[in-house]
Amino acid sequence: MAPKVTPLSGFPELLPAGRLLEQHMLDVIRRTFELHGFAPVETRAVEPVERLLGKGGDADKEIYAVSRLAGDPVGAAAGEAALGLHFDLTVPFARYVLEHAGKLTFPFRRYQIQKVWRGERPQEGRYREFTQADIDVVDVGDLAPHFEAEMPLVLAEAFSQLPIGPFTVRCNNRKIPEGFYLGIGLTDVAATLRIVDKLDKIGPQAVTDLLLAGGATALQARQCLALAEISSADLSFVDAVTGLGVEHPTLTEGLNALSAVIETGMAQAPGILVADLRIARGLDYYTGTVYETLIVGNEEWGSVGGGGRYDSLASDGKTTYPGVGISIGVTRLVHLLVGKRGLSADRSTPSAVLVAVTDEAHRAASTLVATALRRRGIPCEVAPRADRFGKQIRYADRRGIPYVWFPGAADGGGDQVKDIRSGAQLDADPATWECPPADLHPGIIIP
Amino acid sequence: MAPKVTPLSGFPELLPAGRLLEQHMLDVIRRTFELHGFAPVETRAVEPVERLLGKGGDADKEIYAVSRLAGDPVGAAAGEAALGLHFDLTVPFARYVLEHAGKLTFPFRRYQIQKVWRGERPQEGRYREFTQADIDVVDVGDLAPHFEAEMPLVLAEAFSQLPIGPFTVRCNNRKIPEGFYLGIGLTDVAATLRIVDKLDKIGPQAVTDLLLAGGATALQARQCLALAEISSADLSFVDAVTGLGVEHPTLTEGLNALSAVIETGMAQAPGILVADLRIARGLDYYTGTVYETLIVGNEEWGSVGGGGRYDSLASDGKTTYPGVGISIGVTRLVHLLVGKRGLSADRSTPSAVLVAVTDEAHRAASTLVATALRRRGIPCEVAPRADRFGKQIRYADRRGIPYVWFPGAADGGGDQVKDIRSGAQLDADPATWECPPADLHPGIIIP
Repeated sequence: MAPKVTPLSGFPELLPAGRLLEQHMLDVIRRTFELHGFAPVETRAVEPVERLLGKGGDADKEIYAVSRLAGDPVGAAAGEAALGLHFDLTVPFARYVLEHAGKLTFPFRRYQIQKVWRGERPQEGRYREFTQADIDVVDVGDLAPHFEAEMPLVLAEAFSQLPIGPFTVRCNNRKIPEGFYLGIGLTDVAATLRIVDKLDKIGPQAVTDLLLAGGATALQARQCLALAEISSADLSFVDAVTGLGVEHPTLTEGLNALSAVIETGMAQAPGILVADLRIARGLDYYTGTVYETLIVGNEEWGSVGGGGRYDSLASDGKTTYPGVGISIGVTRLVHLLVGKRGLSADRSTPSAVLVAVTDEAHRAASTLVATALRRRGIPCEVAPRADRFGKQIRYADRRGIPYVWFPGAADGGGDQVKDIRSGAQLDADPATWECPPADLHPGIIIP
Repeated sequence: MAPKVTPLSGFPELLPAGRLLEQHMLDVIRRTFELHGFAPVETRAVEPVERLLGKGGDADKEIYAVSRLAGDPVGAAAGEAALGLHFDLTVPFARYVLEHAGKLTFPFRRYQIQKVWRGERPQEGRYREFTQADIDVVDVGDLAPHFEAEMPLVLAEAFSQLPIGPFTVRCNNRKIPEGFYLGIGLTDVAATLRIVDKLDKIGPQAVTDLLLAGGATALQARQCLALAEISSADLSFVDAVTGLGVEHPTLTEGLNALSAVIETGMAQAPGILVADLRIARGLDYYTGTVYETLIVGNEEWGSVGGGGRYDSLASDGKTTYPGVGISIGVTRLVHLLVGKRGLSADRSTPSAVLVAVTDEAHRAASTLVATALRRRGIPCEVAPRADRFGKQIRYADRRGIPYVWFPGAADGGGDQVKDIRSGAQLDADPATWECPPADLHPGIIIP
């Protein structure tokens, strides 16, 4: 008796037309990354649990452990480490850099598009398995600040080619709240940051209550909120912060660094990079600039492109490799487009042509036509059965295949191709027929 | 103190130049699949353990279980099933077909390129994590036999474009040994098949011993070996089998089915499809034609493309969806090429051009050049530091980037581009310069 087939909550799957849309998006993202000279890297899906722990803030409890079903945990017998599935691509990349440092040239630019897993409670826009598309630059000892402006601009170049409409990349620098909190006398920076990070979820009153409960004065709490409310698509955020009257060298450092990022953004992609001083990012390893990307009109869907600078994630004790990167939440983006906005590919197969089969004895003739079309880059398939032509046309129509090809009769009648949308049917030769470029590959339907 | 960084046995990773080679191969494979009208599908990495068990022959003990590190096994609290990582792409695809049958059109052609995991002992050519590239066709109730010839021919079309040299797809039909064994009076077909399947590993004497130990007579054992020795790239295998003087209706059925496959192969890809009656395939679910692909000169590396027909893998009790498919062992193939044959991409980055930076104050001018080149599809990167030009050229050279671009001086000197292999340096305009097509993307070095 076969086990019941049921979806698993948090492990989304797409039908072919949705997957074709996702692949188009992945192709655009990958092409953009490659145009910017990021080298492809793929890391194993598992890391020693020891390496995953303590890197992901609240993520520890979300790690999936992996073990041999029959028998001991993998390798335990051989004294190997317990393994877990990676929850992001940054932690494994940092390990990859340490492991292969002798064979890489720095600064090292890499992109990585893979699945990650988090055992968190599934909800709209949150998954237990999802695809991320990351770029990072790491260097040895010191990392030039211009890379901190480059990361969100590469993301913006990819996003501008995707069917998602307007978006903004919200930027902050962790040194700004850090220096600010120290400047007003709040010394537990991490705890304060964690509370203020909840602002969007729980609102200003609840944040104030938490800050007060944590020992802040009413004035300190008001100042924390005032800082978090500051946002600008130009450099005016600096004056707004200065207006709060707090001074600290770390704050100044953070304001200068964020100004450089926003200034480059204003020159290269006006309106895209926005200084937003409430952005904190959950993961513990960020030390400088941080990013979150919001889709205009679907801000509630959450960030679809986050990242930042990390100065000490990759270190072997002697050498440190500081890095900066940004990660596109491909699955969240795709399910926004497919599930919420109703986008889809306009057919459920790559085939542009269905080659009809006159009768099973002449299947080889249809295969020859298909071979000739493929040789010229035209995706096609041969009809599965020599049904009457009306049925073969319906087979194409159900999949959204635009053309049906009728091989010529053995007695000399020539080949013909029919556009099943218009009904137009013309003589054609598989060695020369031009498939209209718009029909060659699936298009996207935007409702 | 950071945990020690060590490779995990059985979880291979590539350096960027190796990954660029792998990506080239994946691109060729994907393009071939799409030209043949296979629709992309991606399934989740996990399945209920119950669904994985009993599907993979000896694979049961190789399943990796997945559970929340902190707390109960995933979902156990909510009464959900225990989960395991999939060990192939066929079992999850069969589940996908059952789950989404109402939204798919049949026969359904799909390709799927994903990682799979098996907790087996790592050894040369065997991994615990590896990438497979699969095509399958499934239909409702009945599946036309012409698909059984199509699968290995699509694989052959992809392989003929890969830098692997000559290969053969060894084909058998499970009904041939089944009918033959029944015809000579061996009724435990599965046990006999399992023993004969070890022929390549343990040799004829050990196989004979095992057959005798299992209750076969010396004559039966000799006949089993004689059948397994038969192989031909044409239809002569039929006479060879007939010459053994065994008769059984299932044997006849198998011979006819395999003849049809080999005959189509002889017409469309002469010499590629070879009838080889020792091929069994380990996985339990195959019921008809089976395939294994061997690279000439590296047969010891094992099959890099296996599959077959399965008549009852996907069934919900009422409807059965028979299928046939073939799976390319991408990781095994790549590590043969990279590790054994020394192939590699000829650079470690997609960049064709490094745009030099005259001084940090003029970085924006170099960025403008890069933007102009990218707009015309030329992958490039801006030099990370405004070092002296000799050092910037060495940065390009170490990565195999063929061209270095020098932005014109602010006082009116024009841009120049240098081919750092030949040293030739010419005036150039980023809006019109043509990158030689052979240099646009990484090439492959075959030693």
